[in-house]
Amino acid sequence: MITSKQNTKVKLVQSLQSSSRTRKSENKFVIEGIRLAEEAIASNWKTDFVLYTDEISQRGKSLLSKYENRGVLSTLVSTKLMRLMSDTETPQGLLVVLVWQSMPLPEPMDFIMVADRIRDPGNLGTIIRTADAAGVQAVITTPGTVDFLSPKVIRAGMGSHFHIPVLSKDYKQLESLSKSLNFYLASVNEGFPYTDNNFQLPTAIVIGNEAEGASQEIIHLADKKIQIPCLEKVNL
Amino acid sequence: MITSKQNTKVKLVQSLQSSSRTRKSENKFVIEGIRLAEEAIASNWKTDFVLYTDEISQRGKSLLSKYENRGVLSTLVSTKLMRLMSDTETPQGLLVVLVWQSMPLPEPMDFIMVADRIRDPGNLGTIIRTADAAGVQAVITTPGTVDFLSPKVIRAGMGSHFHIPVLSKDYKQLESLSKSLNFYLASVNEGFPYTDNNFQLPTAIVIGNEAEGASQEIIHLADKKIQIPCLEKVNL
Repeated sequence: MITSKQNTKVKLVQSLQSSSRTRKSENKFVIEGIRLAEEAIASNWKTDFVLYTDEISQRGKSLLSKYENRGVLSTLVSTKLMRLMSDTETPQGLLVVLVWQSMPLPEPMDFIMVADRIRDPGNLGTIIRTADAAGVQAVITTPGTVDFLSPKVIRAGMGSHFHIPVLSKDYKQLESLSKSLNFYLASVNEGFPYTDNNFQLPTAIVIGNEAEGASQEIIHLADKKIQIPCLEKVNL
Repeated sequence: MITSKQNTKVKLVQSLQSSSRTRKSENKFVIEGIRLAEEAIASNWKTDFVLYTDEISQRGKSLLSKYENRGVLSTLVSTKLMRLMSDTETPQGLLVVLVWQSMPLPEPMDFIMVADRIRDPGNLGTIIRTADAAGVQAVITTPGTVDFLSPKVIRAGMGSHFHIPVLSKDYKQLESLSKSLNFYLASVNEGFPYTDNNFQLPTAIVIGNEAEGASQEIIHLADKKIQIPCLEKVNL
């Protein structure tokens, strides 16, 4: 059982949890809890290692043996260390380090979502989850959007990171994408009500910053504004 | 393409969407949208048939061919008929009739949730989804709880119906279960804060009716009350 804060795995997890730079340089990220770990294994996601405590539930135990059957190393850690590493208040006693694999944009594309300068991790996670539920093909984040692999985004995404491609692109790349996609700017206050809009495929819906809206670069690319009165109430 | 309201499949779907009795007698239920249909196929769920419109997206089309590869019959219907059958305001152009297969209670049990007399479909769906996310093994509904296969429960459950066993039990069956499980009554107002409670496994957490709390039958079985100040804010 690992009990030392100085353990290499413990230090890696702590750094992955707190630093977007470490996630990029290591190309790894952390998921917590049984549900997400089940999703990851169901998606055959590439796994680095598993850490667990002896307080793990039966459902967690059977998941652990699935990981072990696939040759993934799992190591027992003390409850105290798990609390130190966890981003949640009530850790479920299971934490997995995964290797990030960027999925390509789907071919042909007809419906994607762009998250522009979204700062709140919970909001970005909800956008990814909603996009997934609404049948969107991919989510693209722009510069200035919070890292989509940060713990709170992963948690709010509820496993959707494993279902649809999530990619970050700069404005130059988006400009070249805009040649084959109609960009619609979602706005709370102005534009056509989205239910009345006759979407012309292929479509990219842009969700702008919570306070300031979309960036000038994106507004420049947008073909049309549509109004989504309250995104939270969109009927899935 | 089906265009008639009198078509047998159309009539079956409408009845399954609106009548809990039909769902029970036919042992079938309806899911809508691409995401849920993906979950169902990923879980190898037994499928009766698929209905779709020609407005379906690329992601929907590739899903359709997966269903067809498994020998499931899919039939084109008019947009107007889809709107008639759909329980949502903005149908995604895909609807699947599934055969309900009750999963058994897990062995050994250490952590289940009981939804007692929950009337609101959205609340029950959220309980099922939260239970799944929190690593709970199964959700049991009691008499007086809304049918967990109703369209709004399925939608709010966001696919968790395919991940954890959901079963309905009467109070007699719960009484016999209570011999091997510690029943904790979740309460918003009284009892120990749940974070301070030292759960003794195996545990059943009971969530009572929104307005009136749990039923007398369950209160009678409960070993202890615990306080969950605001379920919505439980940190997953």
